[in-house]
Amino acid sequence: MAKPQHHHELYAVIMAGGQGTRFWPRSRRNRPKQLLNIVGEATMVEQTVARIGPLIPPGRTVVVAGEVYRDTLRSCLPHLPAENFLFEPVGRNTAACVAWAALWVQQRAADAIMIVLPADHLIGDEAEFLRVLDTAAMAAQPLNRLVTIGIRPTHPETGYGYIRLGEDRMQVEDRDVFRVACFVEKPSRQKAEEFLADGRYLWNSGMFVWRVDAILQEVRRCLPRLAKDLEAVGTAIASSSLPRVIADVYPRLQSVSIDVGVMERARDVWVVPGDFGWSDVGSWRALSALLPADAQGNVVVGEQRGLDTSGCYIYSPNKLVATIGITDLVVIETEDVLLICPKERDQDVRKLVELLAREGREDML
Amino acid sequence: MAKPQHHHELYAVIMAGGQGTRFWPRSRRNRPKQLLNIVGEATMVEQTVARIGPLIPPGRTVVVAGEVYRDTLRSCLPHLPAENFLFEPVGRNTAACVAWAALWVQQRAADAIMIVLPADHLIGDEAEFLRVLDTAAMAAQPLNRLVTIGIRPTHPETGYGYIRLGEDRMQVEDRDVFRVACFVEKPSRQKAEEFLADGRYLWNSGMFVWRVDAILQEVRRCLPRLAKDLEAVGTAIASSSLPRVIADVYPRLQSVSIDVGVMERARDVWVVPGDFGWSDVGSWRALSALLPADAQGNVVVGEQRGLDTSGCYIYSPNKLVATIGITDLVVIETEDVLLICPKERDQDVRKLVELLAREGREDML
Repeated sequence: MAKPQHHHELYAVIMAGGQGTRFWPRSRRNRPKQLLNIVGEATMVEQTVARIGPLIPPGRTVVVAGEVYRDTLRSCLPHLPAENFLFEPVGRNTAACVAWAALWVQQRAADAIMIVLPADHLIGDEAEFLRVLDTAAMAAQPLNRLVTIGIRPTHPETGYGYIRLGEDRMQVEDRDVFRVACFVEKPSRQKAEEFLADGRYLWNSGMFVWRVDAILQEVRRCLPRLAKDLEAVGTAIASSSLPRVIADVYPRLQSVSIDVGVMERARDVWVVPGDFGWSDVGSWRALSALLPADAQGNVVVGEQRGLDTSGCYIYSPNKLVATIGITDLVVIETEDVLLICPKERDQDVRKLVELLAREGREDML
Repeated sequence: MAKPQHHHELYAVIMAGGQGTRFWPRSRRNRPKQLLNIVGEATMVEQTVARIGPLIPPGRTVVVAGEVYRDTLRSCLPHLPAENFLFEPVGRNTAACVAWAALWVQQRAADAIMIVLPADHLIGDEAEFLRVLDTAAMAAQPLNRLVTIGIRPTHPETGYGYIRLGEDRMQVEDRDVFRVACFVEKPSRQKAEEFLADGRYLWNSGMFVWRVDAILQEVRRCLPRLAKDLEAVGTAIASSSLPRVIADVYPRLQSVSIDVGVMERARDVWVVPGDFGWSDVGSWRALSALLPADAQGNVVVGEQRGLDTSGCYIYSPNKLVATIGITDLVVIETEDVLLICPKERDQDVRKLVELLAREGREDML
């Protein structure tokens, strides 16, 4: 198959602003999940940028993140031009982040297609991932169309939002692309099982593909106040006054997700189903499930010796972990904290971090 | 009650040679349990010496241990005269250790009474402990009599040997002192329950009180080969040739415990029942049971924060331990090892150390 030509330049917008506490104690306020090497040697944001490299060069890759991550991100991604980093003085959720990035991209290429990617997802089959993005970029060429990537569910997950496929479909590069019937919030277990059996539901991956003029038009229509507040930013883009304008405008911006603020109200939304070993690795257990285990089902980073130990995820790069008679535990050894938690309780790590926050343990956050 | 006069000088012999692996990873080859501050600030051997201080001054306190502990012991016990340390070139069990110490004491005072104490026991009621020793020393005055301290059992322990009381009893300082009917090896659970119900069984504490001439005579009678091999040591005591003689003789000595080699075959053995909060703290669980717990039944050395955590023993002096949903676990965090083990499996720590030894992990032993 001959490689199809894109009529629009592709830009990548990497959203690297997440605060994730579920990988605590590895993830901390000043080093969230996307800045950790959760799998492999490189940080997740580095992997995200490298993964789209074959499709989009560093010069057209934009990273949006909190000002606090400036130094770490710049040193993680030294090959990205300095002006491609958009540092938010405060977090204002994903609609503001996407809209600012869109204004930035528009200033470079008014009809560019931008691919919005969270910085903290894992992709098993990178070649297939790129083919899906390519399809999505082709599908996003008509003006006013927003395209999202949906993941074929493999189990009745209650931690993700879902996308219900509509009746309309089209063929793009031999793939079916579906009109979105609606977005569905994180379901109950029963609903999730129904969705899985139904077959018309995909996981909402939080990855989007659209023309920059399309998303800006939908932001103006769906979030007029946000759009108006950002006008000054659009005017200042690429000028020396931008930092001052951002510092002035950003804290006042409406804080809403792109999903709720735009996607759920947009008029022409399509989804490309993807099946490329995607995971948002939302917890220690999810991470453990992705990694190769030893004969006892243990995943170990570092060194472990034990008796009757099975199903554990053990991270201890600097210290031998000796275990006797433990099953399905998460053990995380960092420089200043040791976490021990059954896999089935890993969602409660967040509560523990909240407890430490209430106790004023800033050193542990 | 007026303090009774002893007609014989009292000497203490502290056996500090144990290799205990059950407190691994805190206890290591070069720092066994008796050289650790298992409870409180001081090491167990320091506490043992300090505890008998009111009865026996440092000048009459002898410490027997392996040559490898020379520097550590000397720095733990700087107030003991250098000549009061007897360092064994190799371990040859307790009969050899006791016999050498007896020869040393005999050279100072031919009819002294020596109190033999393991260096790694805890005593809750130290005043009562000293009163029991005092009684035992009075009881040990007749020549050829060996006295041992028996502990009133509080539960059907299978980890200790037992002493069965005979019919004969005598009153010493208002206490009953019993002739020993026999020594019993570590029993089955069922036997231990019978012993507890029977009332005539005490735990064998491994603490002995006897005249130095009495024990030497019984060693000569029960272990003639050991006694003969040690003759050269007796001749060399207090001479400059002693180190050479010890290095020559010690490796060849018969290796047998004082219990099996002498006590079980001696002719005039008596026991003073003691009830002074004794524990040989033979495991992490035993240690945990001795220490004050928080409202959730956790004993913590260091800092711990958690959700739904109960019944744990956590030792982590340098690092926050964060726990969720764990019960009855032992967690030991040292500089180079992290141990996680249910309390009920704590006897298997020994197996884990053996496993590491088989793997040649000298650095972990």
